Amino acid sequence: MDKEKQKKRSSKSYGNLKQTTQKGKKTAPKGVKNNGKIQKSNVGKKAYENQRKPKKVSKPIKIIPLGGLGEIGKNITLYEYDGDMFLVDCGMSFPDEEMPGIDIVIPDFSYILENKDKIRGLIVTHGHEDHIGAIPYLLRNFNLPIYATRLTIGLIEGKLKEHKLLGDAKLNVIKPSSKINLGKFTIDFIHVNHSIPDAVAFAISCDAGTVIHTGDFKIDTTPIDEYVIDIGKFAEYGKKGVLALLSDSTNAERAGYTASERLVGESFSNLFNKAKGHRIIVATFSSNIHRIQQIIDEAANCRRKVAVSGRSMINVVNVAAELGYLKLPDGILIDVEDINNYEPGNIVVITTGSQGEPLSALHRIAFSDHRQIEIIPGDMIIISATPIPGNEKLVSKVINELMKRGANVVYERMYDVHVSGHACQEELKLMMSITNPKYVIPVHGEQKHLSKHALLAEQMGIEKENILIGTNGSVIELTNDKMTCSEVVPAGRVLVDGLGVGDVGSIVLRDRKHLSDDGIIIITVTIDKLTREVLSGPDVVSRGFIYVKESEEFMSEINELVCDILERCYINNVRDWNTLKTRIKDGVSRFLFTRTKRSPMILPVIMEV
Amino acid sequence: MDKEKQKKRSSKSYGNLKQTTQKGKKTAPKGVKNNGKIQKSNVGKKAYENQRKPKKVSKPIKIIPLGGLGEIGKNITLYEYDGDMFLVDCGMSFPDEEMPGIDIVIPDFSYILENKDKIRGLIVTHGHEDHIGAIPYLLRNFNLPIYATRLTIGLIEGKLKEHKLLGDAKLNVIKPSSKINLGKFTIDFIHVNHSIPDAVAFAISCDAGTVIHTGDFKIDTTPIDEYVIDIGKFAEYGKKGVLALLSDSTNAERAGYTASERLVGESFSNLFNKAKGHRIIVATFSSNIHRIQQIIDEAANCRRKVAVSGRSMINVVNVAAELGYLKLPDGILIDVEDINNYEPGNIVVITTGSQGEPLSALHRIAFSDHRQIEIIPGDMIIISATPIPGNEKLVSKVINELMKRGANVVYERMYDVHVSGHACQEELKLMMSITNPKYVIPVHGEQKHLSKHALLAEQMGIEKENILIGTNGSVIELTNDKMTCSEVVPAGRVLVDGLGVGDVGSIVLRDRKHLSDDGIIIITVTIDKLTREVLSGPDVVSRGFIYVKESEEFMSEINELVCDILERCYINNVRDWNTLKTRIKDGVSRFLFTRTKRSPMILPVIMEV
Repeated sequence: MDKEKQKKRSSKSYGNLKQTTQKGKKTAPKGVKNNGKIQKSNVGKKAYENQRKPKKVSKPIKIIPLGGLGEIGKNITLYEYDGDMFLVDCGMSFPDEEMPGIDIVIPDFSYILENKDKIRGLIVTHGHEDHIGAIPYLLRNFNLPIYATRLTIGLIEGKLKEHKLLGDAKLNVIKPSSKINLGKFTIDFIHVNHSIPDAVAFAISCDAGTVIHTGDFKIDTTPIDEYVIDIGKFAEYGKKGVLALLSDSTNAERAGYTASERLVGESFSNLFNKAKGHRIIVATFSSNIHRIQQIIDEAANCRRKVAVSGRSMINVVNVAAELGYLKLPDGILIDVEDINNYEPGNIVVITTGSQGEPLSALHRIAFSDHRQIEIIPGDMIIISATPIPGNEKLVSKVINELMKRGANVVYERMYDVHVSGHACQEELKLMMSITNPKYVIPVHGEQKHLSKHALLAEQMGIEKENILIGTNGSVIELTNDKMTCSEVVPAGRVLVDGLGVGDVGSIVLRDRKHLSDDGIIIITVTIDKLTREVLSGPDVVSRGFIYVKESEEFMSEINELVCDILERCYINNVRDWNTLKTRIKDGVSRFLFTRTKRSPMILPVIMEV
Repeated sequence: MDKEKQKKRSSKSYGNLKQTTQKGKKTAPKGVKNNGKIQKSNVGKKAYENQRKPKKVSKPIKIIPLGGLGEIGKNITLYEYDGDMFLVDCGMSFPDEEMPGIDIVIPDFSYILENKDKIRGLIVTHGHEDHIGAIPYLLRNFNLPIYATRLTIGLIEGKLKEHKLLGDAKLNVIKPSSKINLGKFTIDFIHVNHSIPDAVAFAISCDAGTVIHTGDFKIDTTPIDEYVIDIGKFAEYGKKGVLALLSDSTNAERAGYTASERLVGESFSNLFNKAKGHRIIVATFSSNIHRIQQIIDEAANCRRKVAVSGRSMINVVNVAAELGYLKLPDGILIDVEDINNYEPGNIVVITTGSQGEPLSALHRIAFSDHRQIEIIPGDMIIISATPIPGNEKLVSKVINELMKRGANVVYERMYDVHVSGHACQEELKLMMSITNPKYVIPVHGEQKHLSKHALLAEQMGIEKENILIGTNGSVIELTNDKMTCSEVVPAGRVLVDGLGVGDVGSIVLRDRKHLSDDGIIIITVTIDKLTREVLSGPDVVSRGFIYVKESEEFMSEINELVCDILERCYINNVRDWNTLKTRIKDGVSRFLFTRTKRSPMILPVIMEV
């Protein structure tokens, strides 16, 4: 199946697995609409080639995405040049509906652990879970040095503390606009805008050339911390010549530009005005510190006190305030226990649960299950987020419950209570234009995002064979002359369930799915070891199949059927334990399907005395 | 809990459960933006009251929504006046993620069956599953006469045939713009536009007044069948005086107007043009016959042949063509088996699967699991639908797979390959304006849709106490003077799983959820009935918990633990069967949680010999 897939993929026209860029076959870009842009790109490309030509480089730089391609989540990329390696990011992802009971999903570290000796460190773009969430699981096995900006390190510290790994960790705070060396690599930390402060892109240089790895970014010319993405630095590298661009594809489907975070502040101002005399509860991502800052600023404007609810929200507010990323006016914060001591019109609550998560503070508020906060009719609830795909129904449920309790819920796009943290099409094009790369490798997205991003690159005049849609595990080799992708290393997913890491695999998941669809029927019987006579049972027990108390007759029919099967086996001298089990399984299965059109799991247990 | 909820709901300010409209307390409508509209509404209201006053009506009309409120799906409403009852629609809904293994959800018919003697029939607005899907389950218990338009009856027939109920069914075809009498009711069938042809609204009249029940509708001034919604008829009733309006809330969150179905035709025309030389595969809802007509028309324009794939698509195309709702140019249809006999540029495939449903034709095509259709790079796939909330990830998966195989997939909103079948805010306001009702009861939606619709009614100048957000089971009583809602009748949900109707309830679902999260561990042991000594076992079997082959040591630890527990019980003279079971359960449970932080279901089975 996997081979099948690979074969099919290679039939695509982008540079891809097993596909080698053909040298010398340089054709003019096909009729693309924006001629101006094509020319610009071509000019840049020539500049690049002229500059690179003098250096005779034979060794390729290898880029191995071990996660984050064909998926949103668990971003992790391995870079290699001439025996030196390092990692960019080490994220987790959330389980989908096909992984019941799973807590989180992390990358398969086997290729990393095989190459421990070569790996010089881990550099991290920013502090979101899909970029740092798997770090504790890696550090358990391989305590490599970590380099990141101050806030990112702060968030990693919290994570390692929880996992009791902080003591030995080798954490290094790096300022944006400064460089570090890892083996034969030099890495420049370049400030970008995103939905968390202190996010950076990397310019990764070695003798083979420079690769720009954007991480998650957007272009916000009016960010809350007044610290605009360092366009100048990207342009500088662009002028010098960039070999490859690995860029964020999350919003590659969306036209135009992503709005500035400041827009949300304006909406808050309007809504806070409308909510005079009523409590305001704002749910957002705990890591969106600029959003939280804007809520606090607006609260201060309206002389409201601010209470914080939700474990992760409290954590992040503490870390961010401590490190100076969040500015709290004196006395503005109150304990959530005390909100009822204030007039409703003097209260703002900042809470988790903007994705409708069942254990989150907002969910508990909605379902009257929160210890301190009960909805008062007239409360204004602002859901300052858009549902991540898959969470739409969860969010709707919370909205419905809040409305039933008389709350005024603001959640629609039209109110501008959320902006994305990722670049839209025009920003992606701008990034390609200023970095002017020879090769473009869209990352951070499902196939549809990567494909759209590749299409944008084509529109920018980059030749099809210089654009590559990789998959997790592809070993992409780059030189001045060519981009190839012939090798594949292990890069699967590892499921974390409770304390178990990797002990739940496809068979266990298949069983869970089966159990959840139709339940289980357990048939136990004790037989005489020698005579093979039934000594006790059969007992029939079911779970998740049918409401037994109202189906006693049906259950005893099953029981009779098993008795019949056992008797027939006895008469026909069937003595073998496995055959007995199979007969029971098949017989009961057939009976149940005929009667109910359902196929519960059937588990015969035969005990011998 | 339910009482709690009810209490809270009644604190809301709309007319609601237990809330009675206060007579004589007529205050001027509060400052609402659109003054023109307010005046209009007030004028209308007076006109209504003047006309109604002469008739001394004491008996109320009762409206009992038995499904469709607080949910999207299973629409069914019972009307009652002076001992006569009838039903409007009898739909099903789809299970959500909290109902694993469930096939469909149908309304609780118990109140209907209690009142069999009074019920004169079932009238149906249109042929969508959420309006007709539960009819076979009702007819099994109660063979009442059914009245609907021709296509709707055609689709009901297909359904009853499958359930072997067609023979005895009492089906009556009613033309739009004609009336029927059911007991003391007269019902006028009024043509509306929707995403299926032959949809109607009802004007339901009795001595207590006229209720307009819109069913699902939109206002399309350029529909494919040139049969515009009968605005004149609604206006006529509006002038005469409408007591109450029950109107479709599906799109109450969306501003503006829903675009005409014809817009999609224009997009098809552009896309078909772009796809020259390539196959085109269009996925859409099988019931959207006008959409299918437009695909076929465009195919004919481009001299392409059309193949149909997917069971429900084939069924509907057959029924619609037979009844004249679908016009097929001679020889345009070909068998899907034969598509490879034609040039790719001469083929259009119409298929199911626009929601990413795992068993649908498009899903099978995407995952190379379709018998006749395999993606050829360059194929244009048009997904002519938007994902229903909850299906977003399923649809994305299909898109990703199709793209991996080199298909060109068109699915974004920007391409206008889909328009909704439901009225947006401006259309809902227009409906209120022309029918000019005294009372407004938003139906067909979750709480958030109903709330938005209620807000629109307020904006139209309808007084808050004349707007009611009901719940399934509320008995809404209407007279000229007041709208009350004091009684509640049973109106839950009944789950259908295979052939079982109602045999899966909350306990079975809870077990399925538990099983799917953490799996099950079954511990069997045979003991001597008299001495209580262990004769065989314990045997420990697990499913969905851990991959046993790689955890043999852990499994034998569990086994040892159970041995210990049994031995301690024996020594301490614990003989009771139930205590033994509890000790095993608790001991194993504690051990597993400490070791894995998981809580599988633990099922001890003790057999006695």
